[in-house]
Amino acid sequence: MGPGPKPVHIGTVTETLAIKVLDKNDRLAARNRSYLKDHRILALNLMSSPGSGKTTLLERTLVELGSKVAVLEGDQATSRDAERIAATGTKVVQINTGKGCHLEADMVWHGLESLGPEPGSVLFIENVGNLVCPALFDLGEAAKVVLFSVTEGEDKPQKYPHMFGAADLILLTKTDLTPHLDFDLALARRNLAQVAPGVPIVEVSTKNGAGLGDWYGWVRQRQQDLGGDK
Amino acid sequence: MGPGPKPVHIGTVTETLAIKVLDKNDRLAARNRSYLKDHRILALNLMSSPGSGKTTLLERTLVELGSKVAVLEGDQATSRDAERIAATGTKVVQINTGKGCHLEADMVWHGLESLGPEPGSVLFIENVGNLVCPALFDLGEAAKVVLFSVTEGEDKPQKYPHMFGAADLILLTKTDLTPHLDFDLALARRNLAQVAPGVPIVEVSTKNGAGLGDWYGWVRQRQQDLGGDK
Repeated sequence: MGPGPKPVHIGTVTETLAIKVLDKNDRLAARNRSYLKDHRILALNLMSSPGSGKTTLLERTLVELGSKVAVLEGDQATSRDAERIAATGTKVVQINTGKGCHLEADMVWHGLESLGPEPGSVLFIENVGNLVCPALFDLGEAAKVVLFSVTEGEDKPQKYPHMFGAADLILLTKTDLTPHLDFDLALARRNLAQVAPGVPIVEVSTKNGAGLGDWYGWVRQRQQDLGGDK
Repeated sequence: MGPGPKPVHIGTVTETLAIKVLDKNDRLAARNRSYLKDHRILALNLMSSPGSGKTTLLERTLVELGSKVAVLEGDQATSRDAERIAATGTKVVQINTGKGCHLEADMVWHGLESLGPEPGSVLFIENVGNLVCPALFDLGEAAKVVLFSVTEGEDKPQKYPHMFGAADLILLTKTDLTPHLDFDLALARRNLAQVAPGVPIVEVSTKNGAGLGDWYGWVRQRQQDLGGDK
């Protein structure tokens, strides 16, 4: 027999420990969700690979959305993103996870205490850049928004099925770069439809502004559904 | 007081559990390292964000390096990467981690059993695309190679300091795209030097071939140091 791919499924030793952690997280996420609902705050959990453009998207969105907004920033280290967000005049709290690979519900709870978002506002939670772990941790958000940059290749939805399968909205970002890449947009859309059937996909570019109106429209609709303020 | 960044460090609930897992992993990694050394196999652990170009780099490297080679492929799901690697005529085993976010030493041990790399060869281990968790798990490799695409932004070394701090070599990838990006190469190098002082940086493009000779040279030197075959 010649060389060839031999798929092997090998479980992780962290699996059984992870179940306990997730149970606890789910209880704390329910507390966040109840608090956010009582205050008519629309919480959106933004997730993606590192460098897919979450912070850059927020910089424009916070200014152009025309709603009351606040931001929780998640990163392993630094407050660079919080500084960029603060420069737009938005209330922001940076959460540093250290060696942690994702935000958890209790971090968001403590973040909310420091942040004090206004009732009726939109709360953007920028998760740690990571297509794996953040998918498993409910933060109590109203919706999960997954960003997917055209520079990452069409195969990512299949390779990270838990993340894309958990999405309520998918933003295909950096579309201005497609002329310089071998990126097959139709194939990417087919791959997404397989892993995340029926989930809306919006193509955006923060450089030329393409698609941003559709993104803002989606946020405003969710906010209206929740009875939030304009 | 006006709005502004308020950095808060909030630990993760997984922290204490993680210590036990890491201890066990380190013992298993030592077993891999001893096996690899006995067989003069140079094992390189390739890590990066999703879509930074690990598989594409391997496709060229396996053909052009001119050494005996074998590959362990890590992904949450699919055997797409293993199929791409097999198409180059290289022996490959795909490890699917399911919900797991990184390879662990025991997965590599079982992968080696299936793969059976030749004594004196170079073993490339392509980790799950993730700039956080894989940094913490020793696989018994000889060196960690971290890829960093110019599409990801100059700030990534500071935001993922554990990964870049663990690197033995940093490959700055997709350099052919820099004319289309606002990417400051000098700033990226300064950021890397701060988090990973003294670690060599090679700028590469698999599209125009820039820098690949330096990358192959680095691998061959490590192989020679280990007494491996050409």
